[in-house]
Amino acid sequence: MTDTVISSATKEVVIGFDRPFVVIGERINPTGRKLLAAEMAAGDMSRVSADAIAQVEAGATMLDVNAGIPLADEPKILADAIQLVQSLTDVPLSIDSSIVAALEAGLAVYKGRPLVNSVTGEEERLEAVLPLIKKYDCAVIAISNDETGISEDPDVRFAVAKKIVERAQDYGIKPCDIVVDPLVMPVGAINIAGLTAFKIIRRLREELKVNTSCGASNISFGLPNRHGMNAAFLSMAIGAGMTSAIMNPLRAEEMAAVMGADVLAGHDPNCARWIKRFREPTPEGAVMEGTGARRENRRRARPAAS
Amino acid sequence: MTDTVISSATKEVVIGFDRPFVVIGERINPTGRKLLAAEMAAGDMSRVSADAIAQVEAGATMLDVNAGIPLADEPKILADAIQLVQSLTDVPLSIDSSIVAALEAGLAVYKGRPLVNSVTGEEERLEAVLPLIKKYDCAVIAISNDETGISEDPDVRFAVAKKIVERAQDYGIKPCDIVVDPLVMPVGAINIAGLTAFKIIRRLREELKVNTSCGASNISFGLPNRHGMNAAFLSMAIGAGMTSAIMNPLRAEEMAAVMGADVLAGHDPNCARWIKRFREPTPEGAVMEGTGARRENRRRARPAAS
Repeated sequence: MTDTVISSATKEVVIGFDRPFVVIGERINPTGRKLLAAEMAAGDMSRVSADAIAQVEAGATMLDVNAGIPLADEPKILADAIQLVQSLTDVPLSIDSSIVAALEAGLAVYKGRPLVNSVTGEEERLEAVLPLIKKYDCAVIAISNDETGISEDPDVRFAVAKKIVERAQDYGIKPCDIVVDPLVMPVGAINIAGLTAFKIIRRLREELKVNTSCGASNISFGLPNRHGMNAAFLSMAIGAGMTSAIMNPLRAEEMAAVMGADVLAGHDPNCARWIKRFREPTPEGAVMEGTGARRENRRRARPAAS
Repeated sequence: MTDTVISSATKEVVIGFDRPFVVIGERINPTGRKLLAAEMAAGDMSRVSADAIAQVEAGATMLDVNAGIPLADEPKILADAIQLVQSLTDVPLSIDSSIVAALEAGLAVYKGRPLVNSVTGEEERLEAVLPLIKKYDCAVIAISNDETGISEDPDVRFAVAKKIVERAQDYGIKPCDIVVDPLVMPVGAINIAGLTAFKIIRRLREELKVNTSCGASNISFGLPNRHGMNAAFLSMAIGAGMTSAIMNPLRAEEMAAVMGADVLAGHDPNCARWIKRFREPTPEGAVMEGTGARRENRRRARPAAS
C-alpha cells in the first residue's frame, strides 16, 4: 500500500492504492485552447478563475495548472496562475510545465506540498527536475518516455519508469513520491493502447508499488463519442489499479465512470459518495431498496429485467 | 482460449476469450414486468415481438427468453415465445427457466444450438438439467450457487462452479459448453460485490478456462443512477475477462461501456464497430483525426485539455 501525500495550505489529498480515485482537473491548460492562451498571455486570468471554481464544484480532488504558451513569460504566468488558484480554492495543485524555470517559479510561490508535472526518463530532465523535487520535498509525476521517445513495448515503458524511480532514490526521493504516468496512447491510432496501458498500470502497482496517473482523454483522441470511450477507459484503468488521472471533471460520463469504479473497487464505503451525488429528491428509496436487494437475491439468483 | 458456439437456424455466435463481448438481451422476461406477464399468460405475444426486434436493432448479439409466470403453463408459453422470436430474428437464444419441463419444451422446438439458462450446483438441478444439455448437444449457463445458497466467499463460489464443470464432464459435456455465472450481488447491499465478482471472473478464466456471463443490472440494484453503475461494472468486468452478460441493450450507457471496453480489450480491430456506431454525419473527421492522433502524441506526451 503506497500513499502519495499532496497538500494545499489547508487541505491534504492522498493518492493511494486503497483510497478514492484522485481526479486532477485538466482544464487550466492553454494547450489547444487558443482563447485561454491569449487571455493568459495578456494577463487576463478570468477564465482560469472560472475553470478552477467549476472543476472543484464538479468534484475535482486536485487541479493541474499549466501555462504553456509559446513566446510568453511562462514562469511568471504559471506563478501568477498558481497564486490566483490557491486564493480561490483549497484543493492541492499539480504544477505543470515542460520548462524547468517555470516549475521552479511555481514551486517558489506554492503554499503546501504540490505534485510536480512532470519528469521524464530523459537524462537532462532527470538532472534538472529531481533536485527541485528534493529541494521542495514534494511529489512528481514521472512520464515513462526517454530520449528514444515513447516505446510501444509495455516492458520498455515499465523499465523507463523503474529507472526514474531508482534515479529519484539516488536523490533521496522516496518511491511513494513518484506518481508514474504510463503514457496512454490514442486507441484510434494504436489498437493495443488500452491493453498496453492496463498491463503497465498493473506492473507499476504490483512490482514497482507506485501510484499512477495519466492524461485520460488521450485514449479517445480522433474517435467519435470521446466521452463514452474515456468513461470505459477510466473504469477499466481503475480496475487495473490506476490511482489518479488528469481529466475533465466537468464531463458527467467520465465522473460517473470514476465514481462507479470507486464503488466497485471498494473505495466508496456504503456507496456513500455515489448515493450523495446521484440520489433522486427522495433519498429513502435508495436506502430501502438497497436493503431489499439482498433479500431478493438470496431468494432468486436471476436479476429482474431492468 | 475457449469458444462456446451458440447458433440459430442460420446464424452462429461464439462466446470466447478473444471475441467481441456477447450481449444477451434480458428484456423478454416477465419477472418484475406485470404487464408483460399478464399479456404472455393470456397468449398475447405482441410485446415479446416488439422487445425481440428492438433489442436486436439496439445491438443484442443474443436474446434471453424467459416465461416465468406464476400459475401459468410455462412450458407452452416458453415454447411459443421461442418459436415466435426465432421467426422474427436470426440471433441465437438463451432458453431461460427454473422449471426443467419448460427448458425441455423450449429445447424441443428450438432451431439451432441454444444456450440453456441455467443449471446450478444443486444436486437435483444438476441431475435434471445436465442430461438435457447432453441430449440436445447445447451449451448451458452454470450459476455458482448450491443447496447452501449463494456464498459471499469468492473461493466457495469458484468451487461450486468447478464442481458443475466437473459434473458436466461426467455427462460428456465439454467445459467450453459451460458458461459460468459467478452471481453478481448488488453492491448497494454488499459493498465488496464488485471486487468479489471480478476476482471470480479472473479465476474462472485463468484456472477453469471457461466463459462467463452474469445478470449485469443486478450490481446496481437499489442504487440511484443504475445505468451509470451498470456501465462502470460492465467495463470493469470485461477488463477482468468476462465474455458475455445478460443485460439491457436498449440502454445507451451500458452499450457504450461494453463497446468501449471491447475496443480497449483489443476486440474491435481498428475501432471499426465503435466508429460505425458513433461517428457523426461526416465520418472523414474520425479517420483523419485518428491518424493525426499518433503524430500529436509522438510530438507531445501530454494530452490537450479535451
